[in-house]
Amino acid sequence: MSTISVDCVIFGFDQNQLKVLLAERWIKDQEGNLLDKDYTLTGYHIYQDEDLDSAAHRIVEDITGLEGLHFEQFYSFGDLNRLQKEKDQRWLKQFGDVFSERVISVAYYSLLPSTKIQILDKDRNIEWFPVYEIENLAYDHHKILDKAIKHLRYRLSHEPIAFDLLPKKFTISQMYKLYESIYNTKYDKRNFRRKVSQMKFVVPLDEYQSAVANKPAQLYMFSRDVYEATKKDHHGFFFNY
Amino acid sequence: MSTISVDCVIFGFDQNQLKVLLAERWIKDQEGNLLDKDYTLTGYHIYQDEDLDSAAHRIVEDITGLEGLHFEQFYSFGDLNRLQKEKDQRWLKQFGDVFSERVISVAYYSLLPSTKIQILDKDRNIEWFPVYEIENLAYDHHKILDKAIKHLRYRLSHEPIAFDLLPKKFTISQMYKLYESIYNTKYDKRNFRRKVSQMKFVVPLDEYQSAVANKPAQLYMFSRDVYEATKKDHHGFFFNY
Repeated sequence: MSTISVDCVIFGFDQNQLKVLLAERWIKDQEGNLLDKDYTLTGYHIYQDEDLDSAAHRIVEDITGLEGLHFEQFYSFGDLNRLQKEKDQRWLKQFGDVFSERVISVAYYSLLPSTKIQILDKDRNIEWFPVYEIENLAYDHHKILDKAIKHLRYRLSHEPIAFDLLPKKFTISQMYKLYESIYNTKYDKRNFRRKVSQMKFVVPLDEYQSAVANKPAQLYMFSRDVYEATKKDHHGFFFNY
Repeated sequence: MSTISVDCVIFGFDQNQLKVLLAERWIKDQEGNLLDKDYTLTGYHIYQDEDLDSAAHRIVEDITGLEGLHFEQFYSFGDLNRLQKEKDQRWLKQFGDVFSERVISVAYYSLLPSTKIQILDKDRNIEWFPVYEIENLAYDHHKILDKAIKHLRYRLSHEPIAFDLLPKKFTISQMYKLYESIYNTKYDKRNFRRKVSQMKFVVPLDEYQSAVANKPAQLYMFSRDVYEATKKDHHGFFFNY
């Protein structure tokens, strides 16, 4: 017998950094003194009367109020030792026998083009954290996060999902920052611009940024029509760094 | 509380058709009379002392004796109604209360370049079936099989995994048959040959088939060295039909 949890890796791009939504966890001793503090992905065990996908949607709706988000299930985690660190055991004991069974976690990820969302869950501290600065995660959640990033990059180099994280009309700089933030590296700007200019499905508009301090940059949009029509040339492939 | 099972989709290519390993299931009434017969994927519930990956390996080793097979976990299935068909319920009742809980299945797939393997499990009829001729599957196993095929095709169009299903030295006809059998369609032979000739990593050898009735065809091999070195040109992409 096992308990099933669903963990949601909710990525958000604040037009500067790739972030992920984490919940604070306070480890206390029996007298209620704070021993340690760390973070978990947003997850919960499934209810007996809901499907796995429904659980993912419920978890995120309860936290953010966001409905109908696009989720992708990417992996399930069931290593025997995944909850065996001492502080994990201490935390789980608070809930009595519920988690004395083995816990298998089915993991989903989702992409948000913004981090400006309202957190409805007032019982926990839930916040955005830059993905590559996270150190103190509970359980095997670092493994889950790493796998989610790997999956995201794989998809990114084969499908046009980058545009899910950008505004409808975007500048090349925004796109450049998105790629740098996902691959956690620096690219040559001119080379990046040249590569993008070869993508027929990234269409330059006669519009420019408004309300910016510097010289307003030209805006572009992603055309799914062009993407689909030219699939034979770019082989369904998008951007491979 | 739930029960976790691991289902293995074992694909094999017999150099003519894509096949999958299935186990026969006999549905009997209380007097032992045969009511119905159908098939399941090879799967089993996990033991409490093994990881998910280990379970996949154990299941296949018990059936085939094959060790160290490469497995890929591709999806987990947990719909509420996945075991609710009448004959599934009738079958599960034989095992008493074990499966009265909800069952979540973590699914793996594996690729074999041959279907000539020994079946060690003598308690069940386990056999190879052509993937696109299968109709009578138990539970939600048709959904699992469909997802596995979708996943296999996705990988196939982005990575050189086709060669895992071919002999080390192969003819273009064998490659052609493999693609036809996975995509379940017919291709133009000349066009296929032309496309393959553009792949620098499919290297023609000065060797020919032996012991064939017709004119022996030239042999080719896949070079991973060339594949890696030319990744920039083919974008990690392989063959997109």
